[in-house]
Amino acid sequence: MKQFISVNDVENIDELIRQGQAYKKNPLIDEALGKGKRIALLFLNPSLRTRMSTQIAAENLGMKVISLNADKDGWKLEFEDNVIMNGTAVEHIKDAAPILGNYCDVLAVRSFPSLLDKEADDNEIIINQFIKYAGVPVISLETSTLHPLQSLADLITIDESIKLTTKRPKVVLTWAPHVKAIPHCVANSFAQWMNEWNAERNDTFDFVITHPEGYELNEKFTQGAEISYDQEAALKDADFVYVKNWSSYSNYGKILSSDANWMLTEKHLQKTNFAKVMHCLPVRRDVELSSEVLDSTHSAVTQQAGNRVWAAQAILSSILKDLKK
Amino acid sequence: MKQFISVNDVENIDELIRQGQAYKKNPLIDEALGKGKRIALLFLNPSLRTRMSTQIAAENLGMKVISLNADKDGWKLEFEDNVIMNGTAVEHIKDAAPILGNYCDVLAVRSFPSLLDKEADDNEIIINQFIKYAGVPVISLETSTLHPLQSLADLITIDESIKLTTKRPKVVLTWAPHVKAIPHCVANSFAQWMNEWNAERNDTFDFVITHPEGYELNEKFTQGAEISYDQEAALKDADFVYVKNWSSYSNYGKILSSDANWMLTEKHLQKTNFAKVMHCLPVRRDVELSSEVLDSTHSAVTQQAGNRVWAAQAILSSILKDLKK
Amino acid sequence: MKQFISVNDVENIDELIRQGQAYKKNPLIDEALGKGKRIALLFLNPSLRTRMSTQIAAENLGMKVISLNADKDGWKLEFEDNVIMNGTAVEHIKDAAPILGNYCDVLAVRSFPSLLDKEADDNEIIINQFIKYAGVPVISLETSTLHPLQSLADLITIDESIKLTTKRPKVVLTWAPHVKAIPHCVANSFAQWMNEWNAERNDTFDFVITHPEGYELNEKFTQGAEISYDQEAALKDADFVYVKNWSSYSNYGKILSSDANWMLTEKHLQKTNFAKVMHCLPVRRDVELSSEVLDSTHSAVTQQAGNRVWAAQAILSSILKDLKK
Repeated sequence: MKQFISVNDVENIDELIRQGQAYKKNPLIDEALGKGKRIALLFLNPSLRTRMSTQIAAENLGMKVISLNADKDGWKLEFEDNVIMNGTAVEHIKDAAPILGNYCDVLAVRSFPSLLDKEADDNEIIINQFIKYAGVPVISLETSTLHPLQSLADLITIDESIKLTTKRPKVVLTWAPHVKAIPHCVANSFAQWMNEWNAERNDTFDFVITHPEGYELNEKFTQGAEISYDQEAALKDADFVYVKNWSSYSNYGKILSSDANWMLTEKHLQKTNFAKVMHCLPVRRDVELSSEVLDSTHSAVTQQAGNRVWAAQAILSSILKDLKK
Repeated sequence: MKQFISVNDVENIDELIRQGQAYKKNPLIDEALGKGKRIALLFLNPSLRTRMSTQIAAENLGMKVISLNADKDGWKLEFEDNVIMNGTAVEHIKDAAPILGNYCDVLAVRSFPSLLDKEADDNEIIINQFIKYAGVPVISLETSTLHPLQSLADLITIDESIKLTTKRPKVVLTWAPHVKAIPHCVANSFAQWMNEWNAERNDTFDFVITHPEGYELNEKFTQGAEISYDQEAALKDADFVYVKNWSSYSNYGKILSSDANWMLTEKHLQKTNFAKVMHCLPVRRDVELSSEVLDSTHSAVTQQAGNRVWAAQAILSSILKDLKK
Repeated sequence: MKQFISVNDVENIDELIRQGQAYKKNPLIDEALGKGKRIALLFLNPSLRTRMSTQIAAENLGMKVISLNADKDGWKLEFEDNVIMNGTAVEHIKDAAPILGNYCDVLAVRSFPSLLDKEADDNEIIINQFIKYAGVPVISLETSTLHPLQSLADLITIDESIKLTTKRPKVVLTWAPHVKAIPHCVANSFAQWMNEWNAERNDTFDFVITHPEGYELNEKFTQGAEISYDQEAALKDADFVYVKNWSSYSNYGKILSSDANWMLTEKHLQKTNFAKVMHCLPVRRDVELSSEVLDSTHSAVTQQAGNRVWAAQAILSSILKDLKK
């Protein structure tokens, strides 16, 4: 693997899932693979789960890790070309990225969307500039539109939870209310991975996305999924329910609804096939998801967050193997 | 050892002191013990000495360390049950703690008291919620009411400084003035450990706590010690003088006195038996303690801070041995 | 080496350059040298390049690294003697430094000048107090007046870029405009190192410093160099052009000129001998240096920043070898 920005960088999803699950059983089995290699984790936005899971994954492979909190250090980068730098940005990505690439063998970057400038967010300027100038493999730790490490962990979780008796698992991504305007990355990315995985597995899954009108995600990522405004119908016989808030995409970054009926509760689950409930965390209890559900055996959220380590380790392993070629 | 929140988690104090002193002589003797194990240091409040000494102790035992500055990352946790999370807290302890426990083998947490809500502080809600939900051993890096890693370092320091000719060492904990309202943790914890140690050693010590009226600590921790409002009498023939400020406990979190006569000076020391002077640091020079004393051979403060490493290493070692059972 | 604060701590510059270049070829050749040793990197000011390169250098030598962001933790230190500490400073350097020295084998400190108090900045109070009280070797990660790790990296870069056909390389340090008042450290330090290196190599170099009137650096560091107000004349036939802004030294910390003619462009370079262009980074594009130059083959800035690792590793190696004596 040369970079990991989206599912498009993946040759075979099931192979990655198998690799992740192998590391889950034996975390240190490839301890020698990353010896003498170093990864920089660059946070333009805060992170705890992603930071920890990626650091652990890298250390399990014998790599050294350097974390840089660029958000805290006020190290403001310029990403536009042809700008006279007499403002607040102290360094241009053209100068910063090659140094990071000089110091490290792999560069991982987290950068949230502004939710103010749809075009800029969609163009993924920041991660693309890092890819252009770093000179080493770049991994997304969540970007403006996608969060692929989360999605791979999600698929690992689904894979290990499918009941043997289930012929055609139904996976539902349902919108939920929130108090803040939230990016689309996790939802976009999950949709993109589910669609690809479904194609790879010859249409094994029934994949439905449900949300109120006006909350349509970018079609680029959802195409292939069934989309429904009727949450009740969507949840019927579901085996997996992924609960997630996002702000409007068409009315970019706006909150159009806070309808509490969309909060996932025990009552909603009664229509499902004893569904496993997923969420990427952090979750607003009794806003997105009821505490009753989170505290029940339905909940897969800890398992899912735990799988972040094995997802990251599978990706790093694939990148390290490519570096050695 | 299953957890380390207070002296009540300790079976034998002198055994821990011996273990700490053994590590001081040979820091890397148990380098293999923590191989493949990871500790998360979670700071809900800032820390330098505790952070460094605990990290060094863990690395000496071969563990991997992840530090999380939750105070900096604005990662506001909810600790109350049955709260609709539509406010500023982004994650509930019920969801966060199991992930930390999933990622790491040991969890260490620092969390200061508010000094505003006596009952909440006394109930130690934060560390108790981590213990309840983390699913791995929890270590206190200082909580609302106690600071046991500091106390064990204090006892190691006293133990290695007792003169052979001293029959019954006199240990005095004396209040000192300060410019800010300071928690009771270090004083509470030292009192609790001294009383337990004295019991374990069959009443070997003369332990006196002295402070102005109104500065009585929680009896739960001081019971067993002699308490005096007369600093001069208390200091007489002292072998060890532990200087520390704390705010009022009865008039919770308030500063009742800034009487400079309580600042420990050379003059005060003349009444003692060439006492060793202790302080947990950071110290306000010429407010709590005179520079003259701190710069004299009386001062044990560097030795004491140095012993923080060996205290932490003794505790981690005991917890790791228990994990292997 | 007992400490590394300036070129005065160096016995033989060329030996250090050779050592750095050896590490560049084989980073892990002395991996065993620092086993069991620990360095603390204390940042009283922010840092990314210095932080990363020093950490990598220390890890390449097998050392453990602890980074402390004292600027972020609001851990305000008192550096003045005989002060009653009833203000905002929470700890005196006299108490803090010995603990850092107790916890670590080497202490590295970054501390920028105020640019407000010339005498205090020139006296280097902060680093000198650390040296006085830490009890272990102290390394400068940039101080009020100097930045020796940068300078050693600069000399490594020049050394590896001198063309075989060049009889007497001409090195020019040229002032450039900036939007902010910038310290003198990098320029002072480069001048000091160039002068010493030139002496060590028996006047091999032609070393010229050029800047507008009023921008004279402290003579203590520049003595030995030719100084010119005529940038065009200075650049003529130059083999190396080091571009750097600094504020006025005589009119301390003030910006006297923002004359865009001093910005280094392709036009300026035409007068040189196909000069290599250097800058310590971060650089303000099209303010200090034109993008055209930075993006051309003239630019040595990535090579130069990359050499920060090998400079730091050569210094740490020399200090570790001294510790073992």
